[in-house]
Amino acid sequence: MSGGLSRRGLLGGGLAAGGVALAAGGYAAARLGEDAAAGGGEPASYPFRGQRQAGIVTAAQDRLHFAAFDVVTDDRDELVELLRLWTDAAERMVQGQSAGPVGAVNGAQNLPPDDTGEALDLPPSRLTLTIGFGPGLFEHPELGDRFGLSDRRPEALADLPHFPADVLDPARSGGDLCVQACADDPQVAVHAVRNLARIGFGTVSVRWSQLGFGRTSTTTTSQSTPRNLFGFKDGTMNVRAEETAALDEHVWVGADDDAAGGWLAGGSYLVARRIAMTIEVWDRQQLGEQEQSIGRFKGSGGPLSGGAEDAQPDFDLQGSDGPIMPVDSHVAVVHPDRFGGARMLRRGYNFVDGSTDVGGLDAGLFFIAFVRDPRTHFIPLQTEMARNDRLMEYLRFTSSALFAVPPGVREGEFVGQALFA
Amino acid sequence: MSGGLSRRGLLGGGLAAGGVALAAGGYAAARLGEDAAAGGGEPASYPFRGQRQAGIVTAAQDRLHFAAFDVVTDDRDELVELLRLWTDAAERMVQGQSAGPVGAVNGAQNLPPDDTGEALDLPPSRLTLTIGFGPGLFEHPELGDRFGLSDRRPEALADLPHFPADVLDPARSGGDLCVQACADDPQVAVHAVRNLARIGFGTVSVRWSQLGFGRTSTTTTSQSTPRNLFGFKDGTMNVRAEETAALDEHVWVGADDDAAGGWLAGGSYLVARRIAMTIEVWDRQQLGEQEQSIGRFKGSGGPLSGGAEDAQPDFDLQGSDGPIMPVDSHVAVVHPDRFGGARMLRRGYNFVDGSTDVGGLDAGLFFIAFVRDPRTHFIPLQTEMARNDRLMEYLRFTSSALFAVPPGVREGEFVGQALFA
Ligand code: HEM
Ligand code: HEM
Repeated sequence: MSGGLSRRGLLGGGLAAGGVALAAGGYAAARLGEDAAAGGGEPASYPFRGQRQAGIVTAAQDRLHFAAFDVVTDDRDELVELLRLWTDAAERMVQGQSAGPVGAVNGAQNLPPDDTGEALDLPPSRLTLTIGFGPGLFEHPELGDRFGLSDRRPEALADLPHFPADVLDPARSGGDLCVQACADDPQVAVHAVRNLARIGFGTVSVRWSQLGFGRTSTTTTSQSTPRNLFGFKDGTMNVRAEETAALDEHVWVGADDDAAGGWLAGGSYLVARRIAMTIEVWDRQQLGEQEQSIGRFKGSGGPLSGGAEDAQPDFDLQGSDGPIMPVDSHVAVVHPDRFGGARMLRRGYNFVDGSTDVGGLDAGLFFIAFVRDPRTHFIPLQTEMARNDRLMEYLRFTSSALFAVPPGVREGEFVGQALFA
Repeated sequence: MSGGLSRRGLLGGGLAAGGVALAAGGYAAARLGEDAAAGGGEPASYPFRGQRQAGIVTAAQDRLHFAAFDVVTDDRDELVELLRLWTDAAERMVQGQSAGPVGAVNGAQNLPPDDTGEALDLPPSRLTLTIGFGPGLFEHPELGDRFGLSDRRPEALADLPHFPADVLDPARSGGDLCVQACADDPQVAVHAVRNLARIGFGTVSVRWSQLGFGRTSTTTTSQSTPRNLFGFKDGTMNVRAEETAALDEHVWVGADDDAAGGWLAGGSYLVARRIAMTIEVWDRQQLGEQEQSIGRFKGSGGPLSGGAEDAQPDFDLQGSDGPIMPVDSHVAVVHPDRFGGARMLRRGYNFVDGSTDVGGLDAGLFFIAFVRDPRTHFIPLQTEMARNDRLMEYLRFTSSALFAVPPGVREGEFVGQALFA
């Protein structure tokens, strides 16, 4: 889509020339500086349409607002209409435009605005909106097959099993639809989710949502590695945008992967796990214990067996009492060698949600991973981790969800259209 | 303090030359770009020591982590020691250094690190740490006068009254101490609060904490006006850093203000109010109703009586059915003319804390204001607002707190030292 009106262009009543809306003014200009600086040559905005949905291999932005929705209608046409409206609004918002064509301030006085307005002066901020379908869209535990989609459900799209040590809050787990909004400015990510919820009023309602403030992964070779709330570099061994063969093998659903899921070919699965960290306990551990739990040095991020951050760990190297890479260290437990080479594209965020009852911070990692098949690329790793990972002592898994993420949206189509063909 | 080691300098084992630690590397460099761009000529870091505490007239940063603490000791020396340790750590962290002199990775393997590490590669990000004392430090409702401070309590430092329509969560209200951490990078703000909590383990525990993602005020003339989650410009008529006479009249506690509070001269009072917005209801209101509720135009921010954003509203101007500025519009209700000219320095933030039970976002405004005296500069306005403001229909006040913010910390002193003299 191009030639639209920018959020700010509308404000002043003027026309923005191009498709990508760049706002002027002090505040916005500051954000533009941020945009330009953030991605090491990344563009200021990403198109919504393309071969793949954006927000997967896209250079991980700094902030997240993730929302899971319940579909509250059983009318297939209403669901399709929602996806149409979401596609249209998403396409506009990722370009820095308002959610609807009229905007927050140019409509009639006696009508509700078609945009909520809080991002009026803000640039696109590299917003991506990634939309996924949960198992409940195909076969809902209470509502059944409301939309006649049960025979289109890929086998892999089933609720994740209960893992040892899961203490899930059901109200914060699952969902029929999800929207992963990532941007360099949280106000832009929040604005997008809120407007999609507003547009969906009567058709969907927000089941749960999660803000993330700092990325914990690196999805392109140009990004440097951030740190999670344990203070360790996170994302070192991630699958990256440039590794196209690895993406085909581990992240994108193949054309023949699952008969019922033909509509999902070229898409992916999104696994979300809210992992609370007992950071007060962690913070009182010795540096040595922390490094043994991860299997890497806290400073450099390099493996305990030696070498720089990107060195491969040597699991056979022996110390005075056993392998230098402890067998129960996180990196040893989840390493691809143990799972037939399975890798994943991790794209999680740090969170703090206020405080706990016992005088600590309710903080942790909102884990997101994109995988070709959760049955081979996630469930075995998570099972092993829950059973044998030394890190588990400091973790509580409080929320869990799985979504199928359809491939990119072509011109003239809406997101997931092939599913309804 | 100068000549310290930078977070990153320590990482590489090298010495950073100056007091302000500027990190190198892609990620950090990106943040530096942000820093430089954000403040319209603001420095990359602010010193902790000075005539006033930073974080009040300081150009409002983009992100907030606010924490209220219970003091869990009744030993005055332990409290004083905590304030010493906090002063030292705060001074280091606002310069982009680690919380303790050794850092997250350079200590002994068999000791816990004296910094948690997640900000290791990040620049100062204009972090400010503003520390305040709650009424419970002087006279605790259950624990009494634990520290022999009851005769030093300024009369104005008492729990705020219950206002009509308050639906407060006591677990999220009050507190003996507060830390307002503001920065351009939320990870830096979170890191600072967490490390102060860690340092205070056994002496304080976190009572409640709040993240804010977007500023809703402007505290210097160089900043442009941001928007709150109602989509309106917020901060237009705020007291700003350049208005030194207004600051003396409305924000800073005067030398003769309150006998018991001599130690507070040059400080201020911080009012915190967590205000949940029923945004789904708001979003369905007509544009006209929204503008009538605020008393300003949504686009320009100018008053309904006419003129640009900074025009003074004309409350006498009549329309076809009454004043053009509705008497129950927010701006008409809280306008200084109605309260003997009382103004405040507002410094609040937008928040989203997940979702509500009824399928909406748990979102709103975390209102923070700095005033010379809450009895004249806040309570009357809040009372009027609760009774007569049309905006109240869309608001729920869920948390409330008041703190006395001591003046700036001089060389060799700790924060609030005069209180203990
Ligand atoms: C709060 C929880 C977690 C923390 C703090 C954490 C932390 C880390 C760290 C520091 C690394 C090493 C650097 C890197 O390669 O990124 C790592 C690697 C990895 N983590 Fe986690 N992780 C967590 C949860 C999980 C979960 C739930 C899974 C999947 C079940 C997982 C799978 C992986 C994988 C596959 C790697 C790469 C291993 C390799 O290829 O060497 N992690 N994690
Ligand atoms: C969610 C709740 C609130 C919202 C959405 C809100 C919004 C606004 C807006 C849009 C303005 C006009 C622009 C400006 O001058 O900044 C304003 C002004 C103002 N607000 Fe609020 N406000 C809220 C709560 C409060 C509270 C609790 C108080 C204090 C009791 C307050 C005191 C003021 C004052 C003193 C002004 C300036 C009035 C003037 O000088 O014209 N506001 N507010």
